[in-house]
Parts: sequence; structure tokens; C-alpha cells
Amino acid sequence: MGFVERLRDAIGAKYVLTGDDMAGYDSDWTGKYRFRPLAVARPASTAEVAAVMRAASEAGVGVVPMAGNTGLMGGTHAEGKLALSLERMNAIRAIRPGARIAIVEAGVVLSQLHEAAEAEGLVFPLTFGAKGSARIGGVLGTNAGGSNVLRYGNTRALCLGIEVVLPSGEVLDTMSELLKDNSGYDLRDLFIGSEGTLGVVTAAVLRLHPKPAAYATGMVAVPDLAGGLDLLNRLQRATGGAVEAFEYMPGHYIDAHLAHDKSARPPFEERHEHNIMVEVGATAPRDATPDEAGEVPIVAHLEGVLGEMIEAGRVLDAVVARSEAQRREIWARREAAAELTFAAGPAIIADVSVPLDRVSDFLDRGYAEVSARDPGARFFVVSHLGDGNVHFTVNPSQDTDKLYDAVMEIVEDIVADLGGSFSAEHGIGLGKRASMARRKDKVALGVMRAIKDALDPQGIMNPGKVLP
Amino acid sequence: MGFVERLRDAIGAKYVLTGDDMAGYDSDWTGKYRFRPLAVARPASTAEVAAVMRAASEAGVGVVPMAGNTGLMGGTHAEGKLALSLERMNAIRAIRPGARIAIVEAGVVLSQLHEAAEAEGLVFPLTFGAKGSARIGGVLGTNAGGSNVLRYGNTRALCLGIEVVLPSGEVLDTMSELLKDNSGYDLRDLFIGSEGTLGVVTAAVLRLHPKPAAYATGMVAVPDLAGGLDLLNRLQRATGGAVEAFEYMPGHYIDAHLAHDKSARPPFEERHEHNIMVEVGATAPRDATPDEAGEVPIVAHLEGVLGEMIEAGRVLDAVVARSEAQRREIWARREAAAELTFAAGPAIIADVSVPLDRVSDFLDRGYAEVSARDPGARFFVVSHLGDGNVHFTVNPSQDTDKLYDAVMEIVEDIVADLGGSFSAEHGIGLGKRASMARRKDKVALGVMRAIKDALDPQGIMNPGKVLP
Repeated sequence: MGFVERLRDAIGAKYVLTGDDMAGYDSDWTGKYRFRPLAVARPASTAEVAAVMRAASEAGVGVVPMAGNTGLMGGTHAEGKLALSLERMNAIRAIRPGARIAIVEAGVVLSQLHEAAEAEGLVFPLTFGAKGSARIGGVLGTNAGGSNVLRYGNTRALCLGIEVVLPSGEVLDTMSELLKDNSGYDLRDLFIGSEGTLGVVTAAVLRLHPKPAAYATGMVAVPDLAGGLDLLNRLQRATGGAVEAFEYMPGHYIDAHLAHDKSARPPFEERHEHNIMVEVGATAPRDATPDEAGEVPIVAHLEGVLGEMIEAGRVLDAVVARSEAQRREIWARREAAAELTFAAGPAIIADVSVPLDRVSDFLDRGYAEVSARDPGARFFVVSHLGDGNVHFTVNPSQDTDKLYDAVMEIVEDIVADLGGSFSAEHGIGLGKRASMARRKDKVALGVMRAIKDALDPQGIMNPGKVLP
Repeated sequence: MGFVERLRDAIGAKYVLTGDDMAGYDSDWTGKYRFRPLAVARPASTAEVAAVMRAASEAGVGVVPMAGNTGLMGGTHAEGKLALSLERMNAIRAIRPGARIAIVEAGVVLSQLHEAAEAEGLVFPLTFGAKGSARIGGVLGTNAGGSNVLRYGNTRALCLGIEVVLPSGEVLDTMSELLKDNSGYDLRDLFIGSEGTLGVVTAAVLRLHPKPAAYATGMVAVPDLAGGLDLLNRLQRATGGAVEAFEYMPGHYIDAHLAHDKSARPPFEERHEHNIMVEVGATAPRDATPDEAGEVPIVAHLEGVLGEMIEAGRVLDAVVARSEAQRREIWARREAAAELTFAAGPAIIADVSVPLDRVSDFLDRGYAEVSARDPGARFFVVSHLGDGNVHFTVNPSQDTDKLYDAVMEIVEDIVADLGGSFSAEHGIGLGKRASMARRKDKVALGVMRAIKDALDPQGIMNPGKVLP
């Protein structure tokens, strides 16, 4: 029996796609990476994933796990490989509000989990622009970050246990919900962020947090990024560390947003060069319950800090949302980032991180040094300033492919100089393998390669990704 | 040149001990594990550790890393091996208050780091009884937990980067201070908690937190553990998640403490069966600044919740510290745990975790089922109730060695039944290898073994520990 026949036998013929039926599984969502899989398998259960992996292992066929397929680094590129789609494993197996956990399968869409948690007065705080399409399998596979890492951590910090199908088809079960479990090596965090190169994550136990009873959300214009950090530190002190999001948008971001979305309104009457979206979440009733005047304390905290800083000339302008609609408008501006990034045409996207107090240096040098190489280059920047993560996008005036490596190397040189990382939250996939080869500690690369060879000796798990 | 000669050459003759000079390196602190190393090496730098590892690797000699040597599971047992002491690598390389990080070497004593952080108005929140002797290398090696995990997480959550000398002598440098870094597999969390079986951790970048500006600390007597969890949940709601410690001490714990320490005072006028130590930390000025009446809001929060619960019969008695001295007295009672555990004679210590709402079931069944096996057994229990971690100690009436496996299996059966772990925070070492063989997911054990073989092909790193 041939490989495809065996797959049909294992999971049902209608769930194994070949030829033209594979449309929709032949590209990432940006369209940058195009490929033609050998076949697409759409298993519905862990047992079926295991059967698929046993078949692939016996046939020596490469397998590319695919969940929401919203990654930016080509991690799902599956030319001549089996694309293993986890879309049908989309059950939220349980939400246990008392224990503040959700048990979910890899195909659950991120916003579906958000809604299920909110229905219980809880939040799964990880969020980013693609939340309506991204699925938990990809969130785990890439150790996704996003806008709320500052308060809640990245995916690893929000995951208590996982279930993984190994290349051999064996099922690793660490679906623990424990806060303390020192029974051997930390396999969970090894598989999280390994981008499907070590196994297929099929389910997870995720942590939920209490939904803040009130938010204070605003847009703030500052004279420079040092002013932005000053604002962050003052707000953290005033609220006891309740800042949920702290997002930087330079003037050109606001311009691009207004040009792209005709219904959008500018955040301020005047145009400012340095704009920050801030959100603080009140979890204690004391900070969330309106006073006699109807003022919500957490909003008053934010306004108090902003007032002081306006007085001192450290804040140029500020608006604070007075309704959920106004809060939504502020978030929509930030969440347009991915769309705006690709609207400007061929782009070189560097997703990097540096220590918080070096973001300003990074941008100054990035603009100057890339412009020296391509004087006609335009820039599109947005930053999770609260965690030091900068999405630095260059639209070259010349052929993008020709300039790609040169621009990346310029950016990576600056990042290395500032003690940062060439990959903050998008992962490596195909797109950053050259950067891995150039920049990653050589000893670390050797250890990663040894682990890969030990856990996937045939090299069938997402071949050619992550490791150079 | 022989192996010991090579060591002398590499790090200086006076720092290589043999024969009777090895006194102090021939036992763990409990005295349960006694051994005679081949030699003791005391390198002073990462380069010297690397030289020691190169020599050991070439000679095929087993190496046992040793920091504070305060572990409970025999992780430093070094019979016929080289004991590699990290005591001389005891520099706090930097404290950077703005970035809230500490860069420390593996030989730094935990309480030394506590003091250095406090001097900057910050805390390194990980703490446990042995803090005056435990060193960072062991904290990292065992992924130590302790009393403040509830709010701040365990060691992994407090570490941003590590430096590791591999068995070959190569140095792995991931001394990052970044909050987002998705550049390949998570090697940091793999080495943390691997108990020296994959490499020697020599330094780390650790996260510091703002020191709470005020604490509310109390002792509370509840009618049952369900009442305790009710108290925890109400306090978390009232304070927005500011509970730092939530520690359970049954009546027999209080009795043992009073018997052992003649200067100790009972927490309440009456003896109660279920006693909880609680501490809440105020990080926002709003919760820490005394009002006109001199009342500190965070203390008022705690007293308010306790008042409601006394009214409802859910709390039987409560005292709240009114001074730092009273706070210290409460903490001293809890920190006597290790001493009290060993004061009662030969003991079988089970360090386990279960979901929070199952601690009560665990204890009921544990007392009953162990008593059925040994009717004369006495129990000594203390629990980090806020994170589900129970230290369940049995003092058998019969020969401890004979009963050890039987008691452990009884406890492990109950834990498995309740969805818990047979190892919460003490690790595996030598003492729990049999439990690992019996209880750990077989596929997980296979993956761990593959990683061990890949990273330490000669098997020289802490041989015979962790993996069965």
C-alpha cells in the first residue's frame, strides 16, 4: 500500500487531499512562501495524528504541521512534504474556571479561546493581530508573544502542559495542570517554540487569568522614547505593575493607517512623531469600582500620571478612552499593523528585540544605516515597547530580493551590538535560517542540532526549518 | 599526567582536594547520603570550570556539580566521582536596577542575592528555608520553588539567561536579558532543573521585582482546607492577585515547633487543626500608604476579608502582624520546617503536588492509607497550599528503610489518582529515581534519555541521577 493510500486508510479518504484539492494549503497567508505539498492530511484526533506520523515515519516522508498558517517566517512551507493540518482538532475540551485552566486542542482558533474564557469572567491574555485565524498549535509552535507579554508573559508562561505526537507516532503526555512539577527535564518548554521540528503538538493545558474588571486605555504622544519609558515606569509604580500593553507607533505608522483606512481618525489634533498606546487593567475591585463621581480609579491613575507628565513637558498630548467603543478604536489602530506592513509593497521585515532602554538607539541607527545603503528606502515600524520587541520593516527603493541579506545584516549588526536578539517573536522558520547561521551562539546551535538528531533521527519533522 | 595532576595544573593545586582534605564534601547536609569523592575541584571562573570539564571528559571521569549542597534528594552524591564545587564562583557580577536584573555566578548564596536586591529597593522573590546556605547553582539545577511561587513563579520564571559549561568543556552562552527571544529551541529551561546531568550552570541573568512597599502578614485558623482555599480566592480578588505566600501548617506542625523551640509562642490562644500563614504584598502606593488613622490599606484589605470570613464561620481565629518583628516571628515558624522535619528521627519525605482543590483529599487519604500500613506511624506535614505543593513526611514506627518503598508507593498512588506529581520542587536526584521509573510517562522518559545521550554521550555529567 502506498503512503497516500495508507493515510486514507488511517484517517478516511475525504480527509487526505491531493492535486487541485490542496488549494489553500499551498501558500502562507502573506503569499511570500508558495509550495506544493505531496498531500494534505486533516486528522481529527490525537490517535489519527499518531497514525499519520507512523505512516510518514515508515515511508520516510517529511511532515509539516500546519495550524492557522498565519506565521510570517515560512514555517509551514511544505514543498513535496505532507502538510499535516490540525484544523479539525478544534475542540475546547474543558474550561475549568475554579482552576483557571483551559484544555484545548491544537486547532482551536485563538479568538475562539478568548471568547470561551471571557464567558467565564476570565481571559487568555495572549493576543496579536492575527487572533481571528491563528490557531493554538501555531501559538505553541512559535512560542507566540504579542501585545500583553509585559504583564502575562509569552506562550511558555501561559502553558502548564502539552500533548505531543513524536515523529515515531508515540504520544508524549505531559498534560499537567500543576504549578510545581520537577519530575525530570522540562520537555514542555522544549517542544513549545520548536516550530514543529521535534514533534506535533496536539493539545495543551493553558492558564487563564481573571478578567480585569476595568481598563484604562489611552493614546499618548511623547517627545522621545525616553519619555515613553519614563511613562511606563511611572505607570507601573502607580498601579503596582498593572500595565497590560505599551505599544509604540511612530508618526509614519499613523500616516499609513490614515491613508489605508479612510474611516480611521487621527489620535490627536496635531501629528506627533512618537505615539504610544497604553492599556492598564484593574484586577482589584478597589481600582475598578467607580467612585461617587462615577470616576473609575484605574482611569484616574492613568490620567494622574499623564497630568504630571504633561505638566513636566514629558508628554505632549494624551487621550484616554471614555467608552468601550473608544477603546476598540485605539486597539484597531494597533491591530492594523500586519495589514499595513504588507500594504506598502515588497518588504524586508526584521522582528527583533533589544533591552527596553535601547529601542531608541536601535531605531536611530536602523534608519540611518539602512538609508545609507538605500537612500530611497521607506520604513514601517511598530514596537511592543514594553517588552523591547521592534518590528522594523524596510520597503526598499530597489529590488527587495537583492537587498534582503544586506539589510538584514545591517539590522542584525545593530541588534548584536545592543545586546538584542535577531528573532523576538516570529520565530525562525525558513526566513531566518541564514540569520541563525550568522548570529546564534555556535555552541547553542550544536546543542540544538544534537537534540534534533536525537528526537527526530530520520529528519522527517518540518525538514529544513529553524536549524541552518 | 594523571587526572588529578591535570586538575591541579588547570586551577591551582590548592583548589584540588583529595583524601582527608575532602571533609565537608562527603555528605549532603541531612547526612542521609554519604560518599567519598575521587577528588574535589574548586574552580574560580567559567574558564576554569571549562578546563576541569575538558580534563574530566578526556579521562572519562564522572563529575558531580555541587553548589550549596542543601538538596534533599542526594543530587550531589559523588562516590568515586569528581565533586565540582562552585563556591568560589560567588560574584554578583552586576545588579542593574533600571533593567531589574541581577547577573550572578552559580556560587552566590541565595540570601546574599536577597540582600543585594533589597539594597536597590528590589527583591529576588524566590525563597525557602535553606536560603542562608543554598546557592544559585543549586537553585537553577533543581528549578527551586519555595514559598513565593504563587505570585512570582519558580526559578524558570525568574531566569532570563544562563551560561553553561557542557561536558566537553564548551561554553554555552545564552546570557540574554531579553523578554522576547525566539531564536531556536529553549535551551535555558532544559538546563534549568536538569540537576547537573546535562552540564554545569556557571552564571545566570535573573529577574528582580519591585520590593512591595508594605506587607500584610498573618496567621489564620480555618475549620478545613476548603475554608483555606476560600480565603485564598477572596484575598486574590480583593488585592488583584497580590498574595505572596499561603502556607499550610496542621496542628501537629505547631505542636512540633513549640516542642522544638522553647522560645516559640503559639499562634493562637487555642490550638487549631488547620493553620495558614498568609502574606500579601502591596506594590502600588495606593495600597501601601497609611491613611490619616495610620492604617495601611493592604493590611485593611487582609483584615476586611478575615472579618467577613470570621462572621461567616469560615475563619476560626486570625492574627495580623502589626510590626516587622511580629512578621518575622510568623515567618520563623514556617522556616523551621526543614529542621523540624529531621528532628523527629528517621523520616520518609514525599514532596508532591496536586491541584489546589485536592490537597485536602490527598491528606485525608495519605494519613489513612499510610496508617493502615503502619498504625504507629507519625506524620509531619507542611504545604505551600497556594501552589498545591505538599511536603508529606512519615516517621514510621518500624524500620524506615524497609518501609520506604511501600510508603512511597502508597503516596504516589494517591497522587497519581488526583492528577498530581510525585516530585514537586525537590527534584529527583538519587532519592526519587525509583519513583521516576514507576510513575513518569514512559514516552517522556524515552525523550529524556535521548536528550541525555545526545548532550552527554560519555555519561560523565552527574552519573546515575534523575534518569532511572
